[in-house]
Amino acid sequence: MNQMSIRIGIVGISGFGGGEALRLIAGHPSFELVYAAGEGSAGSKLIDHFPGLPEPLAELVIETWSPETLPAIDLLFASLPTGTSAEALARVPNHVKIVDIGGDHRYADGWAYGLADVWPELIRGQSRVANPGCFPAASQLALAPLLANNLIEPANIVIDAKTGISGAGRGGGGGFAYAASNENLVPYGLLQHVHMPEMVTTIERLSGGPATGLVFTPHLVPMTRGILVTLYCRGTTTTHACLDAARSYYAQSTFVRVTDNPPQTKWASGSNLAFVSYAADPARNLVIALGVVDNLGKGAAGQAVQNANLMCGLSETDGLQSMPIWP
Amino acid sequence: MNQMSIRIGIVGISGFGGGEALRLIAGHPSFELVYAAGEGSAGSKLIDHFPGLPEPLAELVIETWSPETLPAIDLLFASLPTGTSAEALARVPNHVKIVDIGGDHRYADGWAYGLADVWPELIRGQSRVANPGCFPAASQLALAPLLANNLIEPANIVIDAKTGISGAGRGGGGGFAYAASNENLVPYGLLQHVHMPEMVTTIERLSGGPATGLVFTPHLVPMTRGILVTLYCRGTTTTHACLDAARSYYAQSTFVRVTDNPPQTKWASGSNLAFVSYAADPARNLVIALGVVDNLGKGAAGQAVQNANLMCGLSETDGLQSMPIWP
Amino acid sequence: MNQMSIRIGIVGISGFGGGEALRLIAGHPSFELVYAAGEGSAGSKLIDHFPGLPEPLAELVIETWSPETLPAIDLLFASLPTGTSAEALARVPNHVKIVDIGGDHRYADGWAYGLADVWPELIRGQSRVANPGCFPAASQLALAPLLANNLIEPANIVIDAKTGISGAGRGGGGGFAYAASNENLVPYGLLQHVHMPEMVTTIERLSGGPATGLVFTPHLVPMTRGILVTLYCRGTTTTHACLDAARSYYAQSTFVRVTDNPPQTKWASGSNLAFVSYAADPARNLVIALGVVDNLGKGAAGQAVQNANLMCGLSETDGLQSMPIWP
Amino acid sequence: MNQMSIRIGIVGISGFGGGEALRLIAGHPSFELVYAAGEGSAGSKLIDHFPGLPEPLAELVIETWSPETLPAIDLLFASLPTGTSAEALARVPNHVKIVDIGGDHRYADGWAYGLADVWPELIRGQSRVANPGCFPAASQLALAPLLANNLIEPANIVIDAKTGISGAGRGGGGGFAYAASNENLVPYGLLQHVHMPEMVTTIERLSGGPATGLVFTPHLVPMTRGILVTLYCRGTTTTHACLDAARSYYAQSTFVRVTDNPPQTKWASGSNLAFVSYAADPARNLVIALGVVDNLGKGAAGQAVQNANLMCGLSETDGLQSMPIWP
Repeated sequence: MNQMSIRIGIVGISGFGGGEALRLIAGHPSFELVYAAGEGSAGSKLIDHFPGLPEPLAELVIETWSPETLPAIDLLFASLPTGTSAEALARVPNHVKIVDIGGDHRYADGWAYGLADVWPELIRGQSRVANPGCFPAASQLALAPLLANNLIEPANIVIDAKTGISGAGRGGGGGFAYAASNENLVPYGLLQHVHMPEMVTTIERLSGGPATGLVFTPHLVPMTRGILVTLYCRGTTTTHACLDAARSYYAQSTFVRVTDNPPQTKWASGSNLAFVSYAADPARNLVIALGVVDNLGKGAAGQAVQNANLMCGLSETDGLQSMPIWP
Repeated sequence: MNQMSIRIGIVGISGFGGGEALRLIAGHPSFELVYAAGEGSAGSKLIDHFPGLPEPLAELVIETWSPETLPAIDLLFASLPTGTSAEALARVPNHVKIVDIGGDHRYADGWAYGLADVWPELIRGQSRVANPGCFPAASQLALAPLLANNLIEPANIVIDAKTGISGAGRGGGGGFAYAASNENLVPYGLLQHVHMPEMVTTIERLSGGPATGLVFTPHLVPMTRGILVTLYCRGTTTTHACLDAARSYYAQSTFVRVTDNPPQTKWASGSNLAFVSYAADPARNLVIALGVVDNLGKGAAGQAVQNANLMCGLSETDGLQSMPIWP
Repeated sequence: MNQMSIRIGIVGISGFGGGEALRLIAGHPSFELVYAAGEGSAGSKLIDHFPGLPEPLAELVIETWSPETLPAIDLLFASLPTGTSAEALARVPNHVKIVDIGGDHRYADGWAYGLADVWPELIRGQSRVANPGCFPAASQLALAPLLANNLIEPANIVIDAKTGISGAGRGGGGGFAYAASNENLVPYGLLQHVHMPEMVTTIERLSGGPATGLVFTPHLVPMTRGILVTLYCRGTTTTHACLDAARSYYAQSTFVRVTDNPPQTKWASGSNLAFVSYAADPARNLVIALGVVDNLGKGAAGQAVQNANLMCGLSETDGLQSMPIWP
Repeated sequence: MNQMSIRIGIVGISGFGGGEALRLIAGHPSFELVYAAGEGSAGSKLIDHFPGLPEPLAELVIETWSPETLPAIDLLFASLPTGTSAEALARVPNHVKIVDIGGDHRYADGWAYGLADVWPELIRGQSRVANPGCFPAASQLALAPLLANNLIEPANIVIDAKTGISGAGRGGGGGFAYAASNENLVPYGLLQHVHMPEMVTTIERLSGGPATGLVFTPHLVPMTRGILVTLYCRGTTTTHACLDAARSYYAQSTFVRVTDNPPQTKWASGSNLAFVSYAADPARNLVIALGVVDNLGKGAAGQAVQNANLMCGLSETDGLQSMPIWP
C-alpha cells in the first residue's frame, strides 16, 4: 500500500456511476480503493463485474452496504438511486468525507453543491459534497457565464436536453432493453422532471433573479454515453459577446472548453470535459447556448473525483487527464 | 402489365428518398415502375442495388436522367439534391405529373405545396406538387391544429429538431461515416438552416400572422430513420385543449395520430404515419408540441406517394397501409 | 368483416415474434385478427402496445391466454417461450389450426416441421405446424442444396451464427439492456445451444447421413434484427457448382434468393426473404455457406405466415410481399 | 519540456490508428509528441481534429509527411494505409526508431514482428518493429498457447472474425456510411483476405508445422470498436487443459487475460487488453478458441505503444494502464 494514498470506498459499485468511479479511481495517483459495496453484487469479487481490472484490485470482495461496518476509509463515493441514501449516509462517521453522486443532498443542509468548475472554493476542504445531476451539470455550465454577465434573462430559459441511455441508470428494466431503445428517440417527463428544482435554485444563485419560467424537456437518445443540452434564452447580446464571456469565465478551468463550433457529445466521451458554445441573434432577442458532457464523466463520476480532489487538497486534475475516446 | 396501372418513373433512385419511393411503389396496387434514373448507378440493374426486389422489377436497367429521353410515363417522382432539379424538371412534358421530393419547388410558382394531411384539396388532381421538407413536415403537422385554433402565438416558436442520419442524405461523405456518427449527437446549422423560409411561409399561411421570430435548431441523432421535433410555443391554453383541437383537426386523416403520451420515433418507422402530442402550462404561458415522422416516410417518400395518390384520383392510402416496423 | 376472411388468433402478442405476426396479419388480404392474448398485457388494448395500428384493430382488447376461452377462430399463431406451450396447445380444439412459432413442437409427434421453402408439401393443408428456430432456419436454407446434392459431408459442419438482439426475446432482462449490449459482441452457449438437436435432425433428413459432428456457436450482435450464419463444411466442389445447385434447388421459391456476393443482414430486414451464397476451395476441401434471414421474418413470424398460407390453401406469398426496409 | 522525455512523431494522424496513438501518447509518462503529419489535415492544428486535447499539444500544427523534413525525434509511429509506407519509411534516418502500425513490414527483412505478448524479447531494444494486423493479433493471442503445447493441429484452423467498423479505416467511403452500416452485418473477403499470409507465417512459427489449411472469414459488425475471433480447431484436448495452458503461457503478461467465460468485445474497449478463452470437446476432436481485443488498442495503437516501450527500454505498461470503458 502506498503510504501517501487516500483510502477510498464506493457504495453502489454495480451501477453505471459507481463503475465509472471505480475506473477513475483505479487510475488515480493518490486514491486507493479499499471498500466497495453494492446491492445484489455483494459477495462477488470486483473482477466478476469488471473483467479488465488488474490485480490486486480485481480480488476485492464486494460488501453489503452498511455505514456501521465501514472499514477504515478516508472518503466515500456514494452512487445510490435518489431517495435511498439520505438516512444511511447520515450515519457515516464525520471523519469520513462523502461525495454523494446521487440526488439526495443537492442543496441540502450541511452539504456543499459540487459544481466544481463554477464554485471550487465552496468545495475545497469540505467534508460533505453533493454532485450535481447530469442534466443540471451540463445546463449550468452553459448558462453560468451568461447569467454572471447578465447577458440573458434568468426567468425565461428553455432547456431541451438529450441523454444517452446510460443516463437512465442500470436498473432501467424493459423500457431500456436494446431492441426497444435502439433506433428510437424518446421524449419523457414533460413539465415534471425531478431535476427541475435543482436547476431553478442554481440559476437563481448564478443570476440573483427568479427562474420560475424554466422549461426542461429531456429526451433519451440511442447511444450509451453523452449529454447535449440546447438552451433557448432571451437576451440582446451577440454570439461574440457570449463566447468572450465564457472564455473569461472559464479561463482558470481545465475541464470546461469554449468552442466556436457547436460541440458534439463524442468530444467528451470517457472524459471529465465539458464543452459549451453559443449562437445569438440580437434582432430576435435570442441566445442559444449549447452544453456537452459525458453523463458518466462530468455528469457523474468525473465530477465526483474532481470534487474529491478539491476536498482532499489535491490537484483538481489528478486522475482526470485522459483524453476522450475517439472514435 | 396491369391494364389499369399508372406508369411511374423515379429520378434519383440511388438516394435514400428514391429508394424508399421504389419500395413503396413496388407494393402499390396501381403504380407500375417503368423508369428509374440515377447518377452513378446508370447502366446497372435495380437488383444490383436492391437485392430483395422481385422479378421482373429486379431487371429494370437504371438510366441516365434526362427529360428528353423519358419513356411513356404518367407520373415522375423526383428525388434530387436541392438546387439541382429545377432546370431539368421544367423540361418534363406537361402531361407527365411530377412529385418533387427535393427542395427546389416548395412554394414555387406553378407548384402545389404537398402537405397532404393539411391541404389535400390543393393537391387533388394537380400536375405539379412539391413535397415538404422532412423537418417542416413534422413541425407543421404538430403546429397546424394550434395555429388554426389560435392557441399559440405564431411569432414566437422554437423548434428543436432531431433527425436520424439518413436525413442527411446518402452523399453525406466522411462526416456521416459510421465510426464518427455512432455514439455521437451533433447539433448543426444554428440560426441558418435551409428549411427556415419554408417553415416561416407555412406558419404564416396557417396562422395569418407573421412568424419572423421562428427559431430552428436541427440535431443529428445516431439512428438511421426518424424525426422528432420538440416545439416550444407561447399560449395560455391547456394540454387538454391542445389534444382536443388536434383530434378535431385530424379527424379525417388516416396518417396523423394524436396521442396522450409523448410519441417516440420508432412508432413511425417504415410507415407514412405522423404522431403529434402536446403538453401545456397556462401559468407559464407555455405550450410544448411534439411531432414524430419517419424522415423517409411522411418526411419524404411516403408523403410523395400520398400526394401522387391524390394527384391521380386514387385513394389516399393506396400502397401506404403497412404498419410500422417494430422493434 | 370480410366474408372470405380467415379468423386468426395470436398468443404471445407482447413478445417480438407475436408483434411481428400482428404486423404481417394486419396487412394480409385474407387474415383477420379476432383474438390476441398475452401475459402481462392482458386487459389493455392493442393500441397501447402498437401505436401505429389502425382502427378497428387498435381497439381489440388483449385477453389472458387460455385454450378453454378461445373465441371462434380458424388458426392460432402461438409465440410462447420454449417449454411453456406444449400442455396448453394440446387443449386447443382440433378444428383450430396452429402454427407454433415457439420451440416446443419441432419434430414432435403430430406436428409438421415448417421449413416451408424446403418441404412445402409436408405443410400444405396440415393442421399443426411447428416453425423452425431462427438459427436452424437460416442454417438449413443454406445447407439444403449442398446436402441434397451430396456436395458436402453431413458429419462435419461448423456453424458460426450471429443474431441481432431481438433474437434473445423481449424478456431478456438486464443482460440485454441497451447500455450493456450496445457496442458489444457476445458469444454464448458454446457447445450447448438448445437449437442443436433440431439442426442435427434436419441435416440428417436432408442428407441421409449422421450429423453428429455438428458444431454451433451463436453470437449476439449489437443490432435489433437480422441473422447471418457462416458455415464451414468439407467438400471438394466449386463455388460455381454450389451456386448452381442452390439456384436449381430454389427455382420455385419466391423467398430464397441465391446471390453471387456475400449477403448482408440488412438485405432481408423486415421481410420474409432469405439469402444464401457460397464460396468453395476444392484444394482445401472447403465449402463456406452463408445464410441471411430476418430473425423475426423468415426466422419467426414471416415463416409462420407462409406456413399458415400453405395450411389454409392460400397463395404462399399472401401478405409477405413487402420489400425489405432499406436503409 | 521534460528532460527525460522521448520525442515522438506520428505519421497518419487523421486516421483512426493515428488518432488512438495520439490519445495514448498524450497520457504517456515518458513520451512527448513533437511531430504529427497527415494527408489532408496538413496545415491545421491538432485541436481542430481532437477537441479534447489539452494545451500546449492542442496547438501543434500538422505537417505534410516527408522523411526529409522530420524534426529531431526519437521514435516515429507510422499509421499509413498498407501499400503506401514502405518507400518513405526506408528514408527515415536510422537513429529514429519506427513502429509501423500499417501492414507494409510484417515479416519484412530488417523488421521485428511486434506481437509483444508472445515474443517480447524479439522487440526489446529494436529499432524497426512492425505491428501485427488487428485480426492476426486477436487470432494469434488465442492460438499461441494451443500451438506451443501441441494441443491443436496447425494445418486445420478456421477463423471466423468479427470487427467493429473503425477496423475498416477512416477512408472507408460510402460503404461505411452510417445509414448503410447501422443494423447491418456484412461478411467480406471470403477466401482472399490480405491478412492471410501474416497469419499463416505466425502459426507456422508458433507450431513448427504447415498452416496451409487456414480458413479466415472477416465480418463487419455495426459497432465502432472491437474484434472477436471465434476459432475452430482440431484436437483431442479438454477445456480445462486449454485454459491451463493459456494461464501458464501468459503468466507474465499484463495484457492478456484468460477467462473461464466467453469474452465480450466491450471488456477490452479503449484498452490494450486481450481476452482469450476456450471450449473443447475431445469426443468431437474439437477445440473452440476465442480472442477479444479492441482493434484500435491491442489491434493497433495500444500494441504500438507497448512495442515502443520495449524498444525504448521502458516498462511495458507505461501509458497503457487505463481500465476499459464500461459501459
